[in-house]
Amino acid sequence: VKLKIGFQGELGAFSQEAAGQLLGRDTQVIPFPSFAEVFDALASRKTHAAVIPIENTLHGSVYENYDHLLNHDFRIVAETNIRIIHNLIAPPGVAFKDIRRVYSHPVALNQCLDFFKANPAIEKVPFYDTAGSVRMLMHEKLTDAGAIASSVAANIYQARILKKSIEDDRRNFTRFFLLNGYRDVPSRKQERNVWKTSLVFTTRNAPGSLFRCLSALALRDLSLTKIESRPLRGRPWEYLFYVDFIGREQDENVQNALHQLREMSDFLRVLGSYPRGD
Amino acid sequence: VKLKIGFQGELGAFSQEAAGQLLGRDTQVIPFPSFAEVFDALASRKTHAAVIPIENTLHGSVYENYDHLLNHDFRIVAETNIRIIHNLIAPPGVAFKDIRRVYSHPVALNQCLDFFKANPAIEKVPFYDTAGSVRMLMHEKLTDAGAIASSVAANIYQARILKKSIEDDRRNFTRFFLLNGYRDVPSRKQERNVWKTSLVFTTRNAPGSLFRCLSALALRDLSLTKIESRPLRGRPWEYLFYVDFIGREQDENVQNALHQLREMSDFLRVLGSYPRGD
Repeated sequence: VKLKIGFQGELGAFSQEAAGQLLGRDTQVIPFPSFAEVFDALASRKTHAAVIPIENTLHGSVYENYDHLLNHDFRIVAETNIRIIHNLIAPPGVAFKDIRRVYSHPVALNQCLDFFKANPAIEKVPFYDTAGSVRMLMHEKLTDAGAIASSVAANIYQARILKKSIEDDRRNFTRFFLLNGYRDVPSRKQERNVWKTSLVFTTRNAPGSLFRCLSALALRDLSLTKIESRPLRGRPWEYLFYVDFIGREQDENVQNALHQLREMSDFLRVLGSYPRGD
Repeated sequence: VKLKIGFQGELGAFSQEAAGQLLGRDTQVIPFPSFAEVFDALASRKTHAAVIPIENTLHGSVYENYDHLLNHDFRIVAETNIRIIHNLIAPPGVAFKDIRRVYSHPVALNQCLDFFKANPAIEKVPFYDTAGSVRMLMHEKLTDAGAIASSVAANIYQARILKKSIEDDRRNFTRFFLLNGYRDVPSRKQERNVWKTSLVFTTRNAPGSLFRCLSALALRDLSLTKIESRPLRGRPWEYLFYVDFIGREQDENVQNALHQLREMSDFLRVLGSYPRGD
């Protein structure tokens, strides 16, 4: 049986590209309308694994997915970074000079403002989804419109890329996690030597409490690669901290750090230990 | 001369509501299509101040605005938190039973999924902007459509609220900063006693470097209210850290902390010291 991988979005979404990078193409990818449904499908064993975006270099962390990670008990087993490349896509036979309107998700349209400034006759039309806008073009057989989406979306819906990489900022990367459900998912990246561990903890209301918690890592020379705080709603002065650091959960120094962190925090959950992604 | 306040979005956007909370209604609010233009207008003295969103409880930090803060030299002089309340809005005379389609920004549509589940006959139609969708309804005199937007937008465009607060999650707050340009902006909140300071620093590549930097605050019992890391592009293992803490820049212990932090970081910029917002 092929591995069933859930993700949010339409077929051709960047999450699907991440799934391909993490697990190869020999899987069955299953799109869901919302992140909540991606997690629910994994919990009810309709899927074997899930690929979720966790942060973007321009937009920051996807808090909603951190919340889902906290509310479920899945483990992060791999990560990867995908460069978000926006392409101008149209049905076969439609030339650039024919294009009057371009459909895409508003976030994607707003990331290609230089293109629209250079082509003022082309109208931006907001649509629900980047890949979905390509599907709509093909389905409606539009001859004067294009879409902005990934090259994967162009492939899936057999559309043509008219202009590659029309995004304003090339430093647009999204980091994805691969989550394990009730079956072990072999990741392509398991041969890597450098491991990362992600965890979340809360501290009580006292100055220096974060500092004491971080000493658990600093005293063992464990390098942080991400830290982020989030206020606990309804509990002023208490915070959730999301921390990533270099090290594998099984390592002795990591075990010792976790021991101290468990002592000094109110609540600690290790979200996963996984090979560092590209 | 009335204070000119720049913000991103259409008239009626949540940023305008934040501007009202921070400065009262006796100002001239000037909408801009992008955050970059909001900052440019402040730099070229077309506006006296700007109101920008910096983080949302569901979506996380607005990294783009942190970037603009770094690239310009404005000071944060106040903050406020706005609860994001989505209302179903229609032109006067249009009743709920007449509504077949609802226009709004896709993010707003996605935050009202329970409403659409309960009303399956109503179609979601993505639009560029929440407030802009109300303006369009009124301009086009649509009699079978509604929009999802703020109550401020309903007021400005003289539309009616048919259903209040149809958002799925009430814990949806956005934090806004008021930025000072070349003229002192009197903030409504200056009488507050509790001050916050926001700063950004970078550290070099060494385990424990963040820990040493945070000791500057912890050794003076200064309470962190936010910490967030962001990788420096092209410089692996070097990070920008955004930190907010309770304290005023002029306080002696804060001055001492900044002195140590300047020594232990590679780069430090105080973004502002301001009364804690609601």
